[in-house]
Amino acid sequence: MLPIHRLGPSRLSNTRSRSIIHQGVLTTVTTSLTKVPSLYEQARDALALLDKNLDEAGTDKSRLLMVMVYIPDITAKPEFNRAWDEWVDMENLPLRACLGADLENDDLVEIIATAAVDA
Amino acid sequence: MLPIHRLGPSRLSNTRSRSIIHQGVLTTVTTSLTKVPSLYEQARDALALLDKNLDEAGTDKSRLLMVMVYIPDITAKPEFNRAWDEWVDMENLPLRACLGADLENDDLVEIIATAAVDA
Amino acid sequence: MLPIHRLGPSRLSNTRSRSIIHQGVLTTVTTSLTKVPSLYEQARDALALLDKNLDEAGTDKSRLLMVMVYIPDITAKPEFNRAWDEWVDMENLPLRACLGADLENDDLVEIIATAAVDA
Repeated sequence: MLPIHRLGPSRLSNTRSRSIIHQGVLTTVTTSLTKVPSLYEQARDALALLDKNLDEAGTDKSRLLMVMVYIPDITAKPEFNRAWDEWVDMENLPLRACLGADLENDDLVEIIATAAVDA
Repeated sequence: MLPIHRLGPSRLSNTRSRSIIHQGVLTTVTTSLTKVPSLYEQARDALALLDKNLDEAGTDKSRLLMVMVYIPDITAKPEFNRAWDEWVDMENLPLRACLGADLENDDLVEIIATAAVDA
Repeated sequence: MLPIHRLGPSRLSNTRSRSIIHQGVLTTVTTSLTKVPSLYEQARDALALLDKNLDEAGTDKSRLLMVMVYIPDITAKPEFNRAWDEWVDMENLPLRACLGADLENDDLVEIIATAAVDA
């Protein structure tokens, strides 16, 4: 059996993992730890936490594959784009999709990302 | 060419597969077969069907990687969490995200999951 | 390090890739280039663009694994199904999920797909 590395638990709950590594691919999820009423600020915070999760797994944003972004207010997408454009590694662009989806409580953004992790 | 194993068709339609296995990873999708107006009941049913799809592919919930959950009413998320916490393998926690998304007809939950499948 | 092949940039923005290939799996995203107010027409266009992205990566719809479809109006799903049923390779059915999610501007559909790519 190929090993599954489970990093966590999630910062939100002890019934799920924060990150999973299997066959050289990391999957990880983040939201903003601060629930300020600004998508730009929450996006910066969630992307900083993504950096942290990538680092914990031995990789970084230059090895990102896919980034799925969910925001409750799709009309605020330009605010997410601003945080993204400041953060992304322009030499190593991941695939990205940003969709409108309801989130719990005061969350304005949730990010699910995959990245290559080398042995 | 590496083989793609297609299990199915889907219980909903003969124009899609129920499950796909490629390079040791299963991807599968479930909803509740009973459309009772209770997210908790539908979640239990959809998770039971997930067990069945995992078993059909030769794996089980201890080998889950990622579970994406979509519910039309995000304020009912605690009901999903209750079914999840009763169901999940606490020794082998998958990554999970639960997002608000509209579903068709009387569906209160849809689950897309990946799991390791060993040769 | 296993290589990541990045095809792009996206037709929408130069801060993300159109497609990513890693370990024999392509991930790609499309919307309709024409923003006509018909989900059926936009779905046909987005699926044609998916064909193009698959071809660019050296694969085709017979090697699709998973197709995630997001539409802002879930009640219009039968229109997407019509375009899908005309388009899909019935001998090689992928897994599919179609969810309601808000999209930007006049987009009526967004598709994220994975496919096997052989060396």
